[in-house]
Amino acid sequence: MRDYKVAIVGATGVVGEEMRKILEERNFPLSELRLLASAKSKGEKVSFKEEEIEIQELNSGSFKGLDFALFSAGATISREYAPIAARTGATVIDNSSAFRLEKEVPLVVPEINLKDAFKNTGIIANPNCSTIQLVLILKPLNDYSKVKRVVVSTYQAVSGTGREAIQELLEQTESLLMKSPIKVGVYPHQIAFNVLPQCDIFLEDGYTLEEKKLIKETQKILGAPEMRITATAVRVPVLVAHSEAVNVETEEKITSSKARQILENAPGVQVLDDPKSSLYPLPVNAAGSDLCLVGRIREDNSLENGLNLWIVADNLRKGAALNAVQIAEALIR
Amino acid sequence: MRDYKVAIVGATGVVGEEMRKILEERNFPLSELRLLASAKSKGEKVSFKEEEIEIQELNSGSFKGLDFALFSAGATISREYAPIAARTGATVIDNSSAFRLEKEVPLVVPEINLKDAFKNTGIIANPNCSTIQLVLILKPLNDYSKVKRVVVSTYQAVSGTGREAIQELLEQTESLLMKSPIKVGVYPHQIAFNVLPQCDIFLEDGYTLEEKKLIKETQKILGAPEMRITATAVRVPVLVAHSEAVNVETEEKITSSKARQILENAPGVQVLDDPKSSLYPLPVNAAGSDLCLVGRIREDNSLENGLNLWIVADNLRKGAALNAVQIAEALIR
Repeated sequence: MRDYKVAIVGATGVVGEEMRKILEERNFPLSELRLLASAKSKGEKVSFKEEEIEIQELNSGSFKGLDFALFSAGATISREYAPIAARTGATVIDNSSAFRLEKEVPLVVPEINLKDAFKNTGIIANPNCSTIQLVLILKPLNDYSKVKRVVVSTYQAVSGTGREAIQELLEQTESLLMKSPIKVGVYPHQIAFNVLPQCDIFLEDGYTLEEKKLIKETQKILGAPEMRITATAVRVPVLVAHSEAVNVETEEKITSSKARQILENAPGVQVLDDPKSSLYPLPVNAAGSDLCLVGRIREDNSLENGLNLWIVADNLRKGAALNAVQIAEALIR
Repeated sequence: MRDYKVAIVGATGVVGEEMRKILEERNFPLSELRLLASAKSKGEKVSFKEEEIEIQELNSGSFKGLDFALFSAGATISREYAPIAARTGATVIDNSSAFRLEKEVPLVVPEINLKDAFKNTGIIANPNCSTIQLVLILKPLNDYSKVKRVVVSTYQAVSGTGREAIQELLEQTESLLMKSPIKVGVYPHQIAFNVLPQCDIFLEDGYTLEEKKLIKETQKILGAPEMRITATAVRVPVLVAHSEAVNVETEEKITSSKARQILENAPGVQVLDDPKSSLYPLPVNAAGSDLCLVGRIREDNSLENGLNLWIVADNLRKGAALNAVQIAEALIR
């Protein structure tokens, strides 16, 4: 097996850093790791295995000789540089929303639709964090009995917004404990000891972009444009791991014990479901895990064929960096 | 207008304290305010208007001469003492879950079903906090077009659990900021920087008691036992005010602008809904308000006739103490 030249674009961001950790943890076969970021991080050194790697400034010449370019520097950077990287010969795995809904760009969760990854024309899109964990549990249920409708409410961690949002939550929390005035910058309102029913920007129809991503990306990954989905995306004062309350209507009855059995056998999923001992997925436990945790599996008696579930996954790992690295691993296998 | 003798049972709890504040704020016509609590608070003094009132120990002789007894000391205390208070001649307004679903006990939100309050036989039940805000928005929608099904996910503040839960959130938060070990006591898991998909105890069918209350109490208050409702109740690290993501299916179409108009005219409700300026209900703004705030009103395109809404209300005020005082005010009017 040969070794590969890989770049991380946005290497100093929270997801970029997680990508580096995951490449190291999983011992990805590397002959070069190129860390690209904006001018302000140029020259900084970060450790990788026994080496120190210097951050390079991203420019159109950054991609020569690469096998893979893992992008996580926002949609604007991806729109500008991902096509250049692809033309230069790298396979781009892009964690931004820039190309996810483009028809010729595969949107891939390896456990679900890995075959789509092989149909790429240079760019593969990594889905939104809140989407990945949702499709991991919808796919096996949908395989058993067609999913007709999904209502999802999210409880999303601030790390999904980036490093400044983590800082803002911690600083606001400290200020409030000291009864000092807080600073609001990253989010439009206080996030500490509060919840915000807004993730990403608002669209014309009153939905946020995050809600639209969750709906459209899920339909694309599952190859089910007719699946009816609605969403409310909410930011909560949690550092890492997104939670989702998911209500599912299926064509045939799935009992809660059948659902538990289906999900226990689903790839990338771990069932944690024992109410009697207060066992259910929690953000603080999901942080650092590679799996989508699911619990509170129960029949919804307001429907003939309905289920309620509670899912939690690490938004930086399976929701972003891990999924991207898994795609690269599959392509070289 | 004559003055009334009123007791607060559980006067030292967070809701009991809020009841005292609200009686003062609203200048309830009082000739006596009797503050009852457990032995450990006996003799403590609290201020009310220009007076100092001494806390008395609750016992079966506590209720002589009272017009109203406002109970907020948990279901066990209510089950033991509310019938005694009623027999002694007081009208009991009980904030616990003890009697809410009993057929002969009215369960009242004054804006919705005040007439039920007059049919009491000594005890009137005050609904659960998460229920009150939900029925305030469902009633006017249901009056316009029958509500067929509701899917609700909650984001509930720790003050709903009581004073020790507020303390636990603050102490855990401080410990985590100092990177010290945390203490877990009131909740089964860490609540700081976390969310818990468990409010109250688990029942046999996998639902929590909080979820069952939300479903059954809503049906009772609206006089709509056939209304299909499902719920996931989640505790979040917020001090005061519960939020709910509410998905509503109606028989006829209600456009988002029609829904906004209906809710703008609904008693006890305030519409805060301007996405362009990031205006929507937030727990930190709802805390201290007497109203149920509603925003993010938008059509749910996964249904022919569907709406999504986001509601927030102060769980200690409209969710508990204020609603109880409003019932008493209506009875003496």
